[in-house]
Amino acid sequence: MKQNRRRFISTSIALGAGVAASALPLPKPNQKKVLIHHVFFWLKNPSSKEDLNKLIAGLKTLKGIETVRQIHIGVPASTEKRDVVDNSYSASEILYFDNLAGQKVYQDHPIHKKFVDDCSGLWEKVIVYDAVDV
Amino acid sequence: MKQNRRRFISTSIALGAGVAASALPLPKPNQKKVLIHHVFFWLKNPSSKEDLNKLIAGLKTLKGIETVRQIHIGVPASTEKRDVVDNSYSASEILYFDNLAGQKVYQDHPIHKKFVDDCSGLWEKVIVYDAVDV
Repeated sequence: MKQNRRRFISTSIALGAGVAASALPLPKPNQKKVLIHHVFFWLKNPSSKEDLNKLIAGLKTLKGIETVRQIHIGVPASTEKRDVVDNSYSASEILYFDNLAGQKVYQDHPIHKKFVDDCSGLWEKVIVYDAVDV
Repeated sequence: MKQNRRRFISTSIALGAGVAASALPLPKPNQKKVLIHHVFFWLKNPSSKEDLNKLIAGLKTLKGIETVRQIHIGVPASTEKRDVVDNSYSASEILYFDNLAGQKVYQDHPIHKKFVDDCSGLWEKVIVYDAVDV
């Protein structure tokens, strides 16, 4: 009986997690093989607060894509200046996907295409790093 | 009865999450002002599986630092080749901190210093991007 209850609870937790994941872009902490898409943007006019805000607003639309599990939009932190630290970029995004297929859906998604159409005129350089957890 | 069972399950899920959060450095999803420390490493011998494994083993020790809230260690994903994608790096880490102070504790921590001592001979280039959520 106790065992059955435990099994029932575990299943319920698993199901509960499933429901939450589909309703919200929740993180999958330290999930094996999660795909992380890092992008760093350098604006054409790095001193334009208006351009930065436009870019950030565009980046925020990306969380509407159903395969995006977690999103972080950032700007350079005021950490210690060191030779290895590149703080010349204007904005960054980190998107988490379950797998390669999720990333492909994102690349081809109308929301992503609209973001590129609306915002690509703002930046002069982009670097993308795609990493898979080991 | 059904309602009671539901309530019991919800509580169990909440408790389960609580226990996990105190036992592990779990992420704080989309937490305001979280500091994300991205590091990309290029090995001197990029074809050496042994060197890569040594670096990854070293990176894994960093989760022992108490201010590290989340850690992802990765290698390049096999996403589509595009001009903007840099997949030339050997390994990556993403560390999450609550704030600048947490990142400073990490920089000065004996575990981090030991990692640098043990592994810095393996890499020829490192790029660090520190970002703070907007």
